Amino acid sequence: MRPAALLLLALIATMTIASPLRAQSSPSLSLMPQPSEVTPGSGSLRIDANFSLAFTGYREARMDRAADRFFAQLRGETALVLVHAAPGTHAPDSGATATLKVHTDHASKEVQEVGEDESYTLEVTSGGARLNAANPLGVLRGLQTFLQLVSVSPDGFVAPAVTIHDQPRFPWRGLMIDVSRHFIPLDVLRRNLDGMEAVKMNVFHWHLSENQGFRVESRKFPKLHELGSDHLYYTQEDVRELIAYARDRGIRVVPEFDMPGHNTAWFVGYPEIAAGPGPFEIERKWGIFDPAMDPTSEKTYKFLDELIGEMTKLFPDQYFHIGGDEVNGKAWDANPKIQEFKKSHNLKNNEELQAYFSQRVQKIVTHHGKSVVGWDEVFIPGVPKDIVIQSWRGQESLAAAAQAGYHGILSNGYYLDLGWSAARHYAVEPLSGAAAGLTPEQRKLILGGESCMWSEYVNPENIDSRIWPRNAAIAERLWSPQSVSDPASMYARLDAESARLEWLGLTHRTYYRKMLQRIAGPATPEEFAALRTLADVVEPVKDYSREETATSEPTSQSPLNRVVDAVQLESDAGRHFNELVDKFLAASCADPSIAAQLRATLAGWKANDAPLGSLAQKSFLVREVVATSRDLSAIGGAGLAAIDAITSGNALSADQQAQFNAVLGEAGKAKTQLLLIPVPGVQKLVKAASQAPLCR
Amino acid sequence: MRPAALLLLALIATMTIASPLRAQSSPSLSLMPQPSEVTPGSGSLRIDANFSLAFTGYREARMDRAADRFFAQLRGETALVLVHAAPGTHAPDSGATATLKVHTDHASKEVQEVGEDESYTLEVTSGGARLNAANPLGVLRGLQTFLQLVSVSPDGFVAPAVTIHDQPRFPWRGLMIDVSRHFIPLDVLRRNLDGMEAVKMNVFHWHLSENQGFRVESRKFPKLHELGSDHLYYTQEDVRELIAYARDRGIRVVPEFDMPGHNTAWFVGYPEIAAGPGPFEIERKWGIFDPAMDPTSEKTYKFLDELIGEMTKLFPDQYFHIGGDEVNGKAWDANPKIQEFKKSHNLKNNEELQAYFSQRVQKIVTHHGKSVVGWDEVFIPGVPKDIVIQSWRGQESLAAAAQAGYHGILSNGYYLDLGWSAARHYAVEPLSGAAAGLTPEQRKLILGGESCMWSEYVNPENIDSRIWPRNAAIAERLWSPQSVSDPASMYARLDAESARLEWLGLTHRTYYRKMLQRIAGPATPEEFAALRTLADVVEPVKDYSREETATSEPTSQSPLNRVVDAVQLESDAGRHFNELVDKFLAASCADPSIAAQLRATLAGWKANDAPLGSLAQKSFLVREVVATSRDLSAIGGAGLAAIDAITSGNALSADQQAQFNAVLGEAGKAKTQLLLIPVPGVQKLVKAASQAPLCR
Repeated sequence: MRPAALLLLALIATMTIASPLRAQSSPSLSLMPQPSEVTPGSGSLRIDANFSLAFTGYREARMDRAADRFFAQLRGETALVLVHAAPGTHAPDSGATATLKVHTDHASKEVQEVGEDESYTLEVTSGGARLNAANPLGVLRGLQTFLQLVSVSPDGFVAPAVTIHDQPRFPWRGLMIDVSRHFIPLDVLRRNLDGMEAVKMNVFHWHLSENQGFRVESRKFPKLHELGSDHLYYTQEDVRELIAYARDRGIRVVPEFDMPGHNTAWFVGYPEIAAGPGPFEIERKWGIFDPAMDPTSEKTYKFLDELIGEMTKLFPDQYFHIGGDEVNGKAWDANPKIQEFKKSHNLKNNEELQAYFSQRVQKIVTHHGKSVVGWDEVFIPGVPKDIVIQSWRGQESLAAAAQAGYHGILSNGYYLDLGWSAARHYAVEPLSGAAAGLTPEQRKLILGGESCMWSEYVNPENIDSRIWPRNAAIAERLWSPQSVSDPASMYARLDAESARLEWLGLTHRTYYRKMLQRIAGPATPEEFAALRTLADVVEPVKDYSREETATSEPTSQSPLNRVVDAVQLESDAGRHFNELVDKFLAASCADPSIAAQLRATLAGWKANDAPLGSLAQKSFLVREVVATSRDLSAIGGAGLAAIDAITSGNALSADQQAQFNAVLGEAGKAKTQLLLIPVPGVQKLVKAASQAPLCR
Repeated sequence: MRPAALLLLALIATMTIASPLRAQSSPSLSLMPQPSEVTPGSGSLRIDANFSLAFTGYREARMDRAADRFFAQLRGETALVLVHAAPGTHAPDSGATATLKVHTDHASKEVQEVGEDESYTLEVTSGGARLNAANPLGVLRGLQTFLQLVSVSPDGFVAPAVTIHDQPRFPWRGLMIDVSRHFIPLDVLRRNLDGMEAVKMNVFHWHLSENQGFRVESRKFPKLHELGSDHLYYTQEDVRELIAYARDRGIRVVPEFDMPGHNTAWFVGYPEIAAGPGPFEIERKWGIFDPAMDPTSEKTYKFLDELIGEMTKLFPDQYFHIGGDEVNGKAWDANPKIQEFKKSHNLKNNEELQAYFSQRVQKIVTHHGKSVVGWDEVFIPGVPKDIVIQSWRGQESLAAAAQAGYHGILSNGYYLDLGWSAARHYAVEPLSGAAAGLTPEQRKLILGGESCMWSEYVNPENIDSRIWPRNAAIAERLWSPQSVSDPASMYARLDAESARLEWLGLTHRTYYRKMLQRIAGPATPEEFAALRTLADVVEPVKDYSREETATSEPTSQSPLNRVVDAVQLESDAGRHFNELVDKFLAASCADPSIAAQLRATLAGWKANDAPLGSLAQKSFLVREVVATSRDLSAIGGAGLAAIDAITSGNALSADQQAQFNAVLGEAGKAKTQLLLIPVPGVQKLVKAASQAPLCR
């Protein structure tokens, strides 16, 4: 899933950001995803300890549990001692006096389906609030919107008066987590499902197997998890629990068993289904590997029929993901029996052989009553129409599928592991590019998208910070109207949502400092502050450059304890600095308060290298970033000189310009897999200070 | 437990800090509590992914679980992918090649006893490490010491070579948590027990009942928890689990059922044992209340016999705490039957009546095979010698008990809710004052002490930050030799320990920012930074002033969402500033780098009021602290002027002096229950700048 083409697409995506911004409704509310229709009212509803909630109409136990979570989150956001919050005591049927009255028309499906009604209306007045929905899914969505309305005000906690009519734009809004390359424990998955509920995502795509691990208990083939997981796997009971947990939150669980490649961990216990000779060991490295299933052996299909039979019973969702990506064919080329099979079956190349395999597996899945999801590779003309193509290739691939009458979801542009900014993900529109030209009927075949958290460089410590808050921007892209696309509004709301997500137990902000503390060891307060200052303005290199620039080959045994593992994937401080420079230049460099702010920041960076250097003497993990620290110090100096030049009216000398441009050129180079984010801002300052008239 | 005498004792304690500092051993290691004997070696042991641990000698399942925790904590401190860490795969019996070899001579007692051997020796060389202990308790203690030795270094993670012989000074080192005034869920207790293990505390005193709640399931008297707890209680299964969890960590669990006062929540379900007429309601306010048990009725003793019978079966520890404090006697005075009883039994006053009650209850406890712990009030000449007096009164009270042959533990000076600094708690010595004059035999009767976390102003959000890290200083006082008493060394090691405690899941640092975010609401980054800057340098008012200065009566329903609830009980930033001022003055105000640091800090404070004020317009919780913000801004200005005067050599004018002293006088007054910690530092600067020669 990592073609060079991604880079080109990335560029296109970046360019999209520059398109004209559209008007946003209700910028003062911080709702995320933005509802489809928001009409502000006047006044606000006071939220106090007596807040109560009542259900009328259709009711089920799942709603009571939703109310429990609602009260817990409301308590987190306000710290009020809510007298109606104890489980069993809230949600009284005597709805007449409740603060929030929730009416539900009827039940939703027993197993959540694609495209079920998730709409709701929410009306808040100073006297109370009403939430109406056709079924419990809409109630879940509306409760989250209500929680996002609650805010501190000059007069206590309030929810502003508003009327909201809301429904999702796309019916499939997913997050994929790869639990195979690094195992991710259940509690971490649970809090991420909580986060998904908060931003109205409805599909958890559980990437359960890989070369590096088979992560679910199989009772039919116990050597899969016993020998293929390093004892890190989910029991079937764990799986059932997580599915119930997801259903409570209106989230479908789609399991993925990637095949016929990405299977080395399967072959440790069951080498007989592999195309090449064993023995096999669990893969420890990252990348695309040669081993693949033997697509010519009936043993393979018998095995898969039994395993899929077992797993389709365990996972109730209608969809079953069979992967299908990245088979390099080497194991097939090396096997004379397979070569012979290709000839005798008139399969011209390995793509056709894989198509043969895919069709056989799709029949097995269909036989077990399920529909297939697969990566682009499984889309072969003639496959059953109930298949869903998950596209890592992009909108063109989706459009081709739609034109042929197939459903698709977009993941290209939503790979969270590539380190893109929230704005860059946000600008990726499923119905753009080739997909924009589809007929209305064809467009309906594009069901939505999924963000993907591939786990080469994430573990339970930092996974939350690699998913959140950026995933909320993707969630908005998939829920809100296409016209909701202003990155400035998105960032403002994202920041508020990020704070709210912390009350769900997500650690995307808290682990950062803990990881820096580990890097620093017993530092003085000044030294630790210096590390923090540096870490605040760097980001890991983007896309796949981390592997390309590694000095030793990374494996699943490599500790994720470096600065690159700890820092935010998107540096808020770096972004704010660059925005402040733009504001300074836009105001003709005449605002003394901005000048003072910039100066203070730059002076801090300039002085930062001394304490950082002293800390680097004590910790090998800090020593790794000394070059980046010197760069930060140098651009701090360059930026200060530029501001001095601008404010004094004396342009930088040619020597100074040459010197600073050299500094910036050096600072612009990634070092130990870190990018210094303020470089473009300082570059602008130096440019503005370089020739008279200054500040142009 | 809150006499005016506490204030006087507090003063004495503060004065103790000023006594001459003693030499500390091994200042470069950051061990806490400091072991009794530490001999540094040369070189260090490299800690890498192959780290392994082996047990020899006596072995039990508890030690395997300790090894699991050890590896989890080692992973937290290093993020190494430890290949021997998976449960069941570590701790091989083939100890010859293990990195850490642990030898245990024999088992410890089935129910942990006071005074069991907790000693261990730990030897680390560049080739490996050995831990030897008589029994599993010593192993637990030694494993924690080893974890504290591990640190980042220029060459990776290491444990420095060292030989340690260690044992506790006092056998009873406890933490009391009041789970009644605010209910504290099991998961919060568990992580606090983890913290206790880390600092080698060995008694969890579970304060289970109060006017505000009866927190444990009683099967004999189910109305106790059903009507007396707002549905917030521990089941008996919960209790058994927590006791097992504590035993795993070498911690005894002593339950407290406070009587004959502090019982309103009991009387809701069982008014028949009360001295006054019902009906009763769960108390919502704080303070000392009138209701008390009827000590003259046989019904009361029958009830207590059955309840104590049930609870002594549930709690295996030899000690059973019956409270006994703070009975105001009003309910007894108002009851003619009780007055008559006093007369007929020749009981001259309510103290004698309470003594009668205590003796009856002590007999019941003894009858059920247990020994009594009680607050000072239960110490009545003639009570059985196996009683332990927990003293909220102080060393004098302990000494009196010891002279009469009774055991005691100290809690006066260790009340965590009073907001004292770590240094102030640290200076409280059980064997000082009246206790210093005891004979060696009498001194042995003083078993140790307990820190106390009374929970009027703590809940699951902020309790960790009210216990930690200060509790680690108390733990050191009770474990380490009396000569270990240098507050500077203590603070350096406390800071490192505080960081380590985070890997146990303690939230003492993480909730602070989350709570500030709630206070701020959707603030700009500048506004939030301003709130943070202010919050960093304030502390809640000390002792019982919070109640004395409340503008409305606080109750268990009052939300703990104010700045006073969020800020650290001991401001690190404030302490560092004051220390920096001392350093500046000690160096004759001639160090320009310190001057620059002070100037930057003071300028930041001076400028802080503008963004804080803007945020105050949006949040009632921020508005509350505007006066303190103005004070901070004003002392920032005063401090800056003082430094200017000092560095320019021109003393402050008389007008300036008067103005700044007025500013400082105002800033020194607590406002909205907050103290501005840097005031003394700025005061010193202004004084030093006030008359020639400057800086004296």
